[in-house]
Amino acid sequence: MATSPPGAGRPITRGIVLNRIRSARTISRIKLAADCGLNPATITQVVRELISHGLVVEVGHGASTGGKRPTLLQLNPHSRYAVGVLFERNTCVVVIVDLTGRQIARTSFPGTALLPPDRALSVLATHVNALVGTAGVDRDDVLGVGLVTYGPQQQRTGTLLTHQPTTEWFGYPVAPRLSELLGLPVLLDNDAAAAAIGEYWLGAVEPRTYGCIYMASGIGGGVVVDGEVYRGTSSNGVEIGHITIDTNGGPCDCGNFGCLGNYADPSAVIKQAMASGLGQRLGLDPADTDVMTAFGRIATAANAGDPTAGALITASARHLGTAAVTMASLFDLDLIVLAGPSLAASGIYRTVIEEEVRRRTFARRAHPVRVVTSVSGSDAAAVGGAVLVLQSELAALRLGSQPQGRHDANGSGRLLPFDT
Amino acid sequence: MATSPPGAGRPITRGIVLNRIRSARTISRIKLAADCGLNPATITQVVRELISHGLVVEVGHGASTGGKRPTLLQLNPHSRYAVGVLFERNTCVVVIVDLTGRQIARTSFPGTALLPPDRALSVLATHVNALVGTAGVDRDDVLGVGLVTYGPQQQRTGTLLTHQPTTEWFGYPVAPRLSELLGLPVLLDNDAAAAAIGEYWLGAVEPRTYGCIYMASGIGGGVVVDGEVYRGTSSNGVEIGHITIDTNGGPCDCGNFGCLGNYADPSAVIKQAMASGLGQRLGLDPADTDVMTAFGRIATAANAGDPTAGALITASARHLGTAAVTMASLFDLDLIVLAGPSLAASGIYRTVIEEEVRRRTFARRAHPVRVVTSVSGSDAAAVGGAVLVLQSELAALRLGSQPQGRHDANGSGRLLPFDT
Repeated sequence: MATSPPGAGRPITRGIVLNRIRSARTISRIKLAADCGLNPATITQVVRELISHGLVVEVGHGASTGGKRPTLLQLNPHSRYAVGVLFERNTCVVVIVDLTGRQIARTSFPGTALLPPDRALSVLATHVNALVGTAGVDRDDVLGVGLVTYGPQQQRTGTLLTHQPTTEWFGYPVAPRLSELLGLPVLLDNDAAAAAIGEYWLGAVEPRTYGCIYMASGIGGGVVVDGEVYRGTSSNGVEIGHITIDTNGGPCDCGNFGCLGNYADPSAVIKQAMASGLGQRLGLDPADTDVMTAFGRIATAANAGDPTAGALITASARHLGTAAVTMASLFDLDLIVLAGPSLAASGIYRTVIEEEVRRRTFARRAHPVRVVTSVSGSDAAAVGGAVLVLQSELAALRLGSQPQGRHDANGSGRLLPFDT
Repeated sequence: MATSPPGAGRPITRGIVLNRIRSARTISRIKLAADCGLNPATITQVVRELISHGLVVEVGHGASTGGKRPTLLQLNPHSRYAVGVLFERNTCVVVIVDLTGRQIARTSFPGTALLPPDRALSVLATHVNALVGTAGVDRDDVLGVGLVTYGPQQQRTGTLLTHQPTTEWFGYPVAPRLSELLGLPVLLDNDAAAAAIGEYWLGAVEPRTYGCIYMASGIGGGVVVDGEVYRGTSSNGVEIGHITIDTNGGPCDCGNFGCLGNYADPSAVIKQAMASGLGQRLGLDPADTDVMTAFGRIATAANAGDPTAGALITASARHLGTAAVTMASLFDLDLIVLAGPSLAASGIYRTVIEEEVRRRTFARRAHPVRVVTSVSGSDAAAVGGAVLVLQSELAALRLGSQPQGRHDANGSGRLLPFDT
């Protein structure tokens, strides 16, 4: 617990002020004080510090509200950067965003399949280093890397608590190891939570409270409340892929039974396609580990009017609709964003999920629930990962205190956010 | 949006300060400033106001942290009161709490069955007036009434958006009408959300983030995040009674299908008891609208070792366990409290729900999930309703501004929190 009131110079205060300027885009000092719940003297001091570090600039004047026209502030976009990495077996996306959260560089590669953790992270580090190099970003200006992937996770130690894709990954220190390889701080977070916050920064979402359903190889979810990711006890929330939709259903690898994923995710749809003969017709190989490509072929066939493929994608969408209704009824949402490459593969998803949500959500008489498709397909998660770095206390620490030689703060060249 | 920084004298600032003193029980000004994110000058001024209104008192000194020993503040319990009302067809509980949230009076009656809204609210008002009278509380010291019941609700207008128990209730202005009858402000809220916050104030719950499953005639849920009720878009969240647990299940009155309530709530268990012959054996009348009494007989038989009754209650508990797993996996909870008279009817519920949650929750490797029984049975919702009044902006408005003639603020003798 804090022992003195929030004041100028404390990293947490700097973080609050920066995040508010970022989300407002331009803002006056007086509005900033009101929005942050800080007194004007504190704001004046914090803003002076941020300007002296080159993070904030003055950009003209706003309209008068009676007295002098207020000076407007905004972030200096090119003063600092963050990297976002979506990392999963079948697809990896790396982006660099500037201090305002705008994407300035991007690369992707097909994932690291079943490579062991050490080799997979080494491949990933090579791609990150290459992108930082080609983007012409000074490494000293990179605040950190947001590594986003599936859960469960232990964010405190930067480890995965899952045997996916192979048993070697369970408990492996993915974030500390990547940090070591890159010489940059690395935060571990949930891909669907990152996608939810990424949608907001990519401009798809106006309301500040909304849900996100994310489907790549698996299904995940994220909820943003008043502009911040809903965290719960351990940042392992909104796992809609593993809620029971069939109380008579079979066991799932996760320990639960009748889970949504077993009826609706790409692997489930591929199995159904093989059982119906569609898989053979489309030339799918059930032994292929690249489920997203196989799933993409089924979705493309559905979009082209193939009735068997259409029925399978529609059934998957109805099951996702059930989970969307549960999510909307529990979190009381009026907006759900569909993100991730597998949901982007067919327009059937949005149509069917919206139908289910409109018809079945408990509070539909209090307010409608809209369902929209992500503006960014597979990029929302990676952009969100980078934005989570910008919003983090880690960034606030690194931003304000080291105008020169920022990497030498703890003598090791980097600030590790983990218990080691 | 606020146009000036939070400062002394603004109702919202008073509310923040009062809520912090309430939850801390005793606290120094410096700690209060730090916890509320306000500067010491503001705190000094707000506390001076609160002391002058008789709401806060100084109670000795805390330990020194280097300098002078700080003066400790606490609420003056008998300066103001709030009423909480749990209102449903088959049971009503009315409580009065003091400014610290401690219950000082209580009454209950068997509900208003199928009475039309006007007559039902008139019966309720008589009970509230009688309790205020016998408790010896000055009516001018009552901040308001927290009326808690099932949803969906439109809290802004104080109306129910449901046809339960009869169609006349849909859109009926329950809170404005009760306010008129009592001459007191009335806030409408969700019973399960109130039970969740009530558990905290009744001392059952230490962690600040937890879930609550509530079962009386129906099933509801509430989640408290960092000491505050999770609200979502319209305060109609956590409706676990109406999430699909069986994708092949039949339609529910709510518009969804395969809903938890149809498998696990008292009416469902009574139907199952009639089908199995147990109902006849226990002398239940399926036409009786008092489902809680009938359900109580089945639970009592289960507790006494009747195998048929035991199997029915266990099946109900397993289905609730599925919903508890969904709730824990979506909100990432490490504690679930079971509240409400129907869950209190048998210890089978806690045992079975905990088993399911331990085995099936997604993030169980990140942290365990405990399941505990409410300390207060059916009272948590009513106490929570009263506490929500204390925590509301309404209370903050009425607390600070009217040391005399508090009811004359808007000329009508009461402050209506509704859009009328």
